[in-house]
Amino acid sequence: MHLGRLVLVGVGLMGGSLAAALKRSHAVGEVVGLAREPGELARALELGLVDREETDPAAALACADAVVVATPVGAAEAVFRRIAPHLPAGVLVTDVGSTKGSVLAAARSAFGELPPSLVPAHPIAGTEASGPAAADPALFQGRRVILTPAPESDSGAVAAARALWEAVGAEVVEMAAEHHDEVLAATSHLPHLLAYALVDSLARRDDNDEIFDFAAGGFRDFTRIASSDPVMWHDICRANRDALLPALAGFRAELQRLETAVAEGDGDYLLTVFRRAKAARDRFIEGNES
Amino acid sequence: MHLGRLVLVGVGLMGGSLAAALKRSHAVGEVVGLAREPGELARALELGLVDREETDPAAALACADAVVVATPVGAAEAVFRRIAPHLPAGVLVTDVGSTKGSVLAAARSAFGELPPSLVPAHPIAGTEASGPAAADPALFQGRRVILTPAPESDSGAVAAARALWEAVGAEVVEMAAEHHDEVLAATSHLPHLLAYALVDSLARRDDNDEIFDFAAGGFRDFTRIASSDPVMWHDICRANRDALLPALAGFRAELQRLETAVAEGDGDYLLTVFRRAKAARDRFIEGNES
Ligand SMILES: NC(=O)c1ccc[n+]([C@@H]2O[C@H](COP(=O)([O-])OP(=O)(O)OC[C@H]3O[C@@H](n4cnc5c(N)ncnc54)[C@H](OP(=O)(O)O)[C@@H]3O)[C@@H](O)[C@H]2O)c1
Ligand SMILES: NC(=O)c1ccc[n+]([C@@H]2O[C@H](COP(=O)([O-])OP(=O)(O)OC[C@H]3O[C@@H](n4cnc5c(N)ncnc54)[C@H](OP(=O)(O)O)[C@@H]3O)[C@@H](O)[C@H]2O)c1
Repeated sequence: MHLGRLVLVGVGLMGGSLAAALKRSHAVGEVVGLAREPGELARALELGLVDREETDPAAALACADAVVVATPVGAAEAVFRRIAPHLPAGVLVTDVGSTKGSVLAAARSAFGELPPSLVPAHPIAGTEASGPAAADPALFQGRRVILTPAPESDSGAVAAARALWEAVGAEVVEMAAEHHDEVLAATSHLPHLLAYALVDSLARRDDNDEIFDFAAGGFRDFTRIASSDPVMWHDICRANRDALLPALAGFRAELQRLETAVAEGDGDYLLTVFRRAKAARDRFIEGNES
Repeated sequence: MHLGRLVLVGVGLMGGSLAAALKRSHAVGEVVGLAREPGELARALELGLVDREETDPAAALACADAVVVATPVGAAEAVFRRIAPHLPAGVLVTDVGSTKGSVLAAARSAFGELPPSLVPAHPIAGTEASGPAAADPALFQGRRVILTPAPESDSGAVAAARALWEAVGAEVVEMAAEHHDEVLAATSHLPHLLAYALVDSLARRDDNDEIFDFAAGGFRDFTRIASSDPVMWHDICRANRDALLPALAGFRAELQRLETAVAEGDGDYLLTVFRRAKAARDRFIEGNES
């Protein structure tokens, strides 16, 4: 796989990492960053993540071989509207957004109908850091990337998206967007909401300095994801509302049962839940050791 | 500080680490492990954490300079009852339990009244591992240890407990047991309960294999504490019920407000909470960087 020109919209952790990885594996000729205003991509240029900054979408998209949207998901519709008039037919458009139903909906709305060359993608990789300085060419190595093509998607475009992600070392799988959103609500969006909720509830206490002062390593790991970018996560919670609400309701019911067990001193119930959870997590970690 | 003979009850992660650390800093002559049955401490002996196993409390406690109880907190009362008839007056008794009000209550009940030489302690250090093989002589280096002496506690015993923990590199602070239990409910016990609840709620889904399959690094960190020992944590939840329930109620209220904001698409509220949480966590991490 080789792309002559890749147009990147949003050059932060994800976009920057993809550019760096494609460059490292000589899978791309030129990376053009499409900026909202001149100078926006100064840091990305300095870091060598993009070769050129463009603010004019027509100029950026001329002769493009692929377009990757790597902004927060709430910006997807505006980005699609901006590129829609200038996108040459058949050019692959993909993204890295954490929610997929919303990206398909944004594209349908911006383009009028879904371009057959649009194949949404979500790399299951990342950290709580953000911005181009956090970009890492090894970020996708050995990680999953979920493609969520629509019925309208062209099979050649799906193959091109697969090749792009495989070029940076990812293992590509396909899934319906709705199913993706439900699975990720459970494993990612809900945990982020819980971590933010816990840290905020402690931060708002009068004794919060002391509280954090006596927090240990377990707390540091548990709350790591609460250091993630607030704008990105507020976008995700809004974009994936329909899958997040049932996940939240399920968790709330589970927590309510545990709270009752604590109140009633029901040690058997606590032990059963804790044992089942530990077994599941230890199994998950072993399965992901490599 | 030098202890001729230390009696250790419970030689797992915490007890084993303390023994290893005291030995490494030449602060102890002999470590005697008080076992429930012969051969129980074979692994700890093999690892050089204890020098001798005793099953007879009278034999173990004769000539002891200090006793450290490092069992799950639910075992504290039984351990205190076992040593009570044989404990020479004035010998320091301390522990490592994660809850402190319950340990004071267990001692009052087992000894009839609180021995002035008893000084409860809680090292804010640990991992999700357990057992003697996980022992680490550096575990307490630079970490906080909270002492929760009672009004009856002898000031000489408090000084001895402080010296013991300082000998293994810890920074010792004092706090009322009740206050300790409230602070730790918020920063440790509640997060453990949330992690167990989340993993269990996912593990009980029909699609749990797939769910875990698409979990990323954020999930791994968030749920690390759900790999902690279930017996130890069911003890802690029962022992600290009175502080844990209000912490749970506070969290539940916060989560309910977030759920409403997700349902109503209230992006401003989500952004405010996420920003405040990120700022608090980043501040906490910076303050604990060293
Ligand atoms: N971080 C993760 O762990 C992770 C994992 C999987 C998927 N994702 C997804 O990846 C996407 C990007 O996340 P990230 O972590 O890379 O965030 P990031 O580091 O903050 O990067 C996002 C970039 O997009 C730019 N941007 C925002 N709105 C834009 C617009 N309308 N036009 C052009 N550029 C725009 C931002 O510029 P300014 O900062 O100047 O606004 C920033 O450079 C999100 O959709 C997220 O859901 C993230
Ligand atoms: N792990 C942490 O991160 C951490 C942090 C701070 C405080 N603590 C506290 O430290 C204490 C010990 O935790 P740990 O992590 O060291 O657990 P651990 O590794 O499981 O060790 C506990 C040890 O106590 C033994 N034991 C249990 N009941 C006993 C009894 N009645 N008499 C004698 N020995 C007994 C256990 O033996 P068997 O396994 O053979 O039953 C085991 O060797 C707990 O109170 C916990 O709350 C733990």
